[in-house]
Amino acid sequence: MPGDRSRRHFGSDNWSGVHPEVIAAITAVNTGHVPSYGHDTYTAAAIEKLRDAFGEQAEIFFVFSGTGANVLSLQTIAQPFNTVLCAASAHIYTSECGAAEKHVGCKLTPIETRDGKIDSERLLPHLQSFGNDHAVQPAAVSITQATEYGTVYSLDEIRLLSHFAHQNGLKVHMDGARLANAAAHLGCSLAETSGEAGIDVLSFGGTKNGLIAGEAVVFFDPELARNFAYRRMQGTQLSSKMRFIAAQFDALFTDQLWLRSAIHSNSMARLLAEGIETLPGCRVTQPVEANEVFATIPRAYVTALQNVSQFHIWDEDTTEARFVCSFDTTEDDVSGFITVARAILSETKGARTPPP
Amino acid sequence: MPGDRSRRHFGSDNWSGVHPEVIAAITAVNTGHVPSYGHDTYTAAAIEKLRDAFGEQAEIFFVFSGTGANVLSLQTIAQPFNTVLCAASAHIYTSECGAAEKHVGCKLTPIETRDGKIDSERLLPHLQSFGNDHAVQPAAVSITQATEYGTVYSLDEIRLLSHFAHQNGLKVHMDGARLANAAAHLGCSLAETSGEAGIDVLSFGGTKNGLIAGEAVVFFDPELARNFAYRRMQGTQLSSKMRFIAAQFDALFTDQLWLRSAIHSNSMARLLAEGIETLPGCRVTQPVEANEVFATIPRAYVTALQNVSQFHIWDEDTTEARFVCSFDTTEDDVSGFITVARAILSETKGARTPPP
Amino acid sequence: MPGDRSRRHFGSDNWSGVHPEVIAAITAVNTGHVPSYGHDTYTAAAIEKLRDAFGEQAEIFFVFSGTGANVLSLQTIAQPFNTVLCAASAHIYTSECGAAEKHVGCKLTPIETRDGKIDSERLLPHLQSFGNDHAVQPAAVSITQATEYGTVYSLDEIRLLSHFAHQNGLKVHMDGARLANAAAHLGCSLAETSGEAGIDVLSFGGTKNGLIAGEAVVFFDPELARNFAYRRMQGTQLSSKMRFIAAQFDALFTDQLWLRSAIHSNSMARLLAEGIETLPGCRVTQPVEANEVFATIPRAYVTALQNVSQFHIWDEDTTEARFVCSFDTTEDDVSGFITVARAILSETKGARTPPP
Amino acid sequence: MPGDRSRRHFGSDNWSGVHPEVIAAITAVNTGHVPSYGHDTYTAAAIEKLRDAFGEQAEIFFVFSGTGANVLSLQTIAQPFNTVLCAASAHIYTSECGAAEKHVGCKLTPIETRDGKIDSERLLPHLQSFGNDHAVQPAAVSITQATEYGTVYSLDEIRLLSHFAHQNGLKVHMDGARLANAAAHLGCSLAETSGEAGIDVLSFGGTKNGLIAGEAVVFFDPELARNFAYRRMQGTQLSSKMRFIAAQFDALFTDQLWLRSAIHSNSMARLLAEGIETLPGCRVTQPVEANEVFATIPRAYVTALQNVSQFHIWDEDTTEARFVCSFDTTEDDVSGFITVARAILSETKGARTPPP
Repeated sequence: MPGDRSRRHFGSDNWSGVHPEVIAAITAVNTGHVPSYGHDTYTAAAIEKLRDAFGEQAEIFFVFSGTGANVLSLQTIAQPFNTVLCAASAHIYTSECGAAEKHVGCKLTPIETRDGKIDSERLLPHLQSFGNDHAVQPAAVSITQATEYGTVYSLDEIRLLSHFAHQNGLKVHMDGARLANAAAHLGCSLAETSGEAGIDVLSFGGTKNGLIAGEAVVFFDPELARNFAYRRMQGTQLSSKMRFIAAQFDALFTDQLWLRSAIHSNSMARLLAEGIETLPGCRVTQPVEANEVFATIPRAYVTALQNVSQFHIWDEDTTEARFVCSFDTTEDDVSGFITVARAILSETKGARTPPP
Repeated sequence: MPGDRSRRHFGSDNWSGVHPEVIAAITAVNTGHVPSYGHDTYTAAAIEKLRDAFGEQAEIFFVFSGTGANVLSLQTIAQPFNTVLCAASAHIYTSECGAAEKHVGCKLTPIETRDGKIDSERLLPHLQSFGNDHAVQPAAVSITQATEYGTVYSLDEIRLLSHFAHQNGLKVHMDGARLANAAAHLGCSLAETSGEAGIDVLSFGGTKNGLIAGEAVVFFDPELARNFAYRRMQGTQLSSKMRFIAAQFDALFTDQLWLRSAIHSNSMARLLAEGIETLPGCRVTQPVEANEVFATIPRAYVTALQNVSQFHIWDEDTTEARFVCSFDTTEDDVSGFITVARAILSETKGARTPPP
Repeated sequence: MPGDRSRRHFGSDNWSGVHPEVIAAITAVNTGHVPSYGHDTYTAAAIEKLRDAFGEQAEIFFVFSGTGANVLSLQTIAQPFNTVLCAASAHIYTSECGAAEKHVGCKLTPIETRDGKIDSERLLPHLQSFGNDHAVQPAAVSITQATEYGTVYSLDEIRLLSHFAHQNGLKVHMDGARLANAAAHLGCSLAETSGEAGIDVLSFGGTKNGLIAGEAVVFFDPELARNFAYRRMQGTQLSSKMRFIAAQFDALFTDQLWLRSAIHSNSMARLLAEGIETLPGCRVTQPVEANEVFATIPRAYVTALQNVSQFHIWDEDTTEARFVCSFDTTEDDVSGFITVARAILSETKGARTPPP
Repeated sequence: MPGDRSRRHFGSDNWSGVHPEVIAAITAVNTGHVPSYGHDTYTAAAIEKLRDAFGEQAEIFFVFSGTGANVLSLQTIAQPFNTVLCAASAHIYTSECGAAEKHVGCKLTPIETRDGKIDSERLLPHLQSFGNDHAVQPAAVSITQATEYGTVYSLDEIRLLSHFAHQNGLKVHMDGARLANAAAHLGCSLAETSGEAGIDVLSFGGTKNGLIAGEAVVFFDPELARNFAYRRMQGTQLSSKMRFIAAQFDALFTDQLWLRSAIHSNSMARLLAEGIETLPGCRVTQPVEANEVFATIPRAYVTALQNVSQFHIWDEDTTEARFVCSFDTTEDDVSGFITVARAILSETKGARTPPP
């Protein structure tokens, strides 16, 4: 049953709870009065820790949610008469209920991809309208790292794309809701896969990696950050008791909790993928590079398998499912699911009535 | 010094931390996986508790922030060609960086008041433009309970204003960032001072009353709630790990924590006001009905007094200060401040150089 | 040369001037003072004439431009959290610089088509997200009649699509920039191809059919028109000297000028298409049902042909060109172009160097 | 009766028709095909004429309407988190149905004035919030020349205000719907009272001065014009048959038609004011510097006087009326009105029943 709290599911990494070190950090700062809206020393200290990770020149702002981080970031690089180019599978295009269009007032141009990754070749056809006042003007490209398909851009792929974008006058935004997982896969620092690879502004996710609610907008181009404090307030993303978001990030960057958690959830995903590959009628459809597994499964058994452990059907037509592992997913969660799934899928077909 | 954590200040009720019962509730739900985005049983249970307080027909949605609650509420009752009438001192007019104008796309019409309260007489002159297509069309009135001046609308005042507004085709929004303090003052239920008095949609505040971050939008007119789920998501105010906002509200409505805290902070404000009235050169300027005290203080001593305990200068011209008490303000905090303040203010004037 | 005024081009029907009967009507109303902003008897009379054409219950508003008519229409049927489904070739999607996204705040969902026409089968896959608060909610479908490819929806096609849309809770908008040409092709009234076929709101074009500047928004669902006067003013589309737009429409509906002009430009397009089909290396690519001809032409001769008479390259990859005829296009314009074009295209290929 | 076309009223300068020289110019360009959307030689020529008037570096764009010119101008100098400071009587604040708030997304801050004019002293109190992220950030001041009260800023007043604004980081917009009347009053060029006095961007009105419909946005700071072509298209203010707006402006700048018309309407207003001053119970309330007269009139006679010649009641409380003269107002129109008005107002009071 969804919501059964005796085990972990594969529904999403935001189905998980909060890392105990994060809870401890929140409790630790819950003492006395401090200035609100981020004018406190806890916030200053947490920002310093992120600056250590992202670079001294980075401008960093905490917000509540990933959609908040995305629409506020995009407002700094696009005007209403612009378009932001992104993968057709991008979270900002498919899953934020039109937030970018409303908040920025601009169009998003979807680019079809196989694995959620854009490259310069796919961008090029969308760069023909510069100077035509009937057409929205490309201003930025937004990429997701790791992608919505659980794949990871290599450092070279990001560098090449950023270089191409900059040469064409575009800024580059990265939706890094799962950047930690990408960096863990690449074995690189957070800065190497973002600012140092040419990203101008980053939505850096914390919630999917063990926080209650907390994301950071990281500007590698400080000029873009100039009016961000006003945008954040107007954009309803300024927390009054900011120390409690700061504390979460402080914990995330203490003893590299972000990396420990990401390495773990990535490894659970690989384990899960290996298991799924052995299941009758199942096939993993995307490289498993972060903490997600995409796999087609027999349509007749979807409900039975979801009753074991929840997961999301990504594509109804092909019965492609998405499984997400989390910081708290255990080897037993994975092997338990595979064992029961194998039993279900190995039933003789006649023994079970597929849904009509 | 601002941020000195060894004592409580009067800077704002969002300078305070989080009530221990709220922390406990967060910890209690931090177990296993549950569906995200509010599709969990914790959220359902917390909503039921609020429904007990606000009425069975109320539609309730949790969001991150007060500004979020306000702009999303206003979107349900105003179109871009409308205006929302509000006090010139309203938080939505003065302190949200133009959020309503951006998110709703409409004008806010400020109404001058003495004490932050609007009545039908003050509304009337702004209702002359119906049908004139050059003028924004009044669609709603927004009132704040308790007001930004720490005063509280009586039940009759709200009823009369709501009735007048409805008769003129206006919806009524209440910014209830400090509704708990108002209800504590009035000795009435939350429903009596909101939905039962004619309010159509309410921003109900939790953060200023001991939560980490959590507000609720409460619709008494269910029709207005129809598309709110989409507005909340598009408005960047949907928390993925919703159980953790739900848990905070659950705690707030367990053993009437909201009321216990509000009664306490209100009584601390009255104590503070009594003390301030005895200070040389100080005068309380507004009725102290909630948890805020407004008082003029001698300009030359502002900095010295702020060094004792932080507070906000509300009006630079008259040196009117605002002092806010919180759930955790103690009698010692108050008496300690008054004692030191008396000593400072009683110095012979020549003994101290006023700032240039 | 573009702008050579000694002959007619095929650049667009807005390259043409103004019909003499329209100029005469403007001059005729240029006498004395009348109330501004449409509160004059000329405007009332013109609206009555359009009501005769579109139906007694139709609500009619004059605006300046087609984009203005479109974005204002869409605001009456979509909220920011909605999406408007339209052909990927729709003018609102490709050629209005993101106006709908900015003014409505919503997403437009492009649907690929062969000939610019949407049908229920193409709509269906985009109607899966109802109730999912992460996905924009389909609220309306917008079709263009005649389409951007010069094709015309049959009355049955519109009726079926409208019926399907209404059954799924969608409103139907028609971009009728060239509705006159469609009605002329179908041999039906303007009402039959719009309101009577199920359209809820129509952008009815005048400019492309011989006016200086004037479009009408026609509501067949009067409820949608309720606040349109305010939207038009706020939308910068209310003309102060309205009588001069009214006079243009009055002329257009006097002795069926709209129909006379549309029949003529349609017949010129057919004549042109017949000529182009005879040209070496050229192929007409779309049914010629209104006043536009689409044809692939040899890339090497594009510039030479444009020097004869201007036209637009619609698709750079396939060298598909668009030719538009106008109320003032003559048989000599057409036959003259075909004659010279034949000479150019009949040159031995070696005799001319294609562009690199 | 409103709309009686046998005489001129004082309702507004947009109650008048079109100057015959403008009609002639429209007819003259109505020949053959030219590129649309302003890519024609007529438009280039008209822009050159305006550049002669406004300065070689001026960037000039034609639009349909004054509200269109205003909201597009403001978009170049304000972001959503900004505020534009303007007189409380400003057309953009009172009479455009919230267009600026919707299109720019920002707040307008109204400043009370006596005569429609802002000066640095009135601006100063609104410049206290720089750097406070809860408060909208002042980005621009918008002034109206001539003002909505028919008064005219002197060149020095504009220079001082612009200088003060620039020193405080604000851009300066001028709503010049009646700039011609102001320049005629001041005896200066259009450039002297706009760009040369420090204005950054100007909405220059044509419609109120004898055009059908046509306004120009004039940038004296060319950097602001950089993306204006896209804003104009997206803002629904790009005319496809642009030559017909260009022709109107061409006429307006041929033999200084703008100045001839403005001198005439200004002198008619002075004549009217002199007459009104002699009427029993009437008092002119504002300096008559442009083509408008403001005067209080006896409430009991408003309807009777409006039946003679229409005018607008500006302030219901004080029965202050606004009379506007136009390019086509004649001395007979004025003296005729005064004569009949005197007769009406000289009736013994008892002889007529005031409205209840």
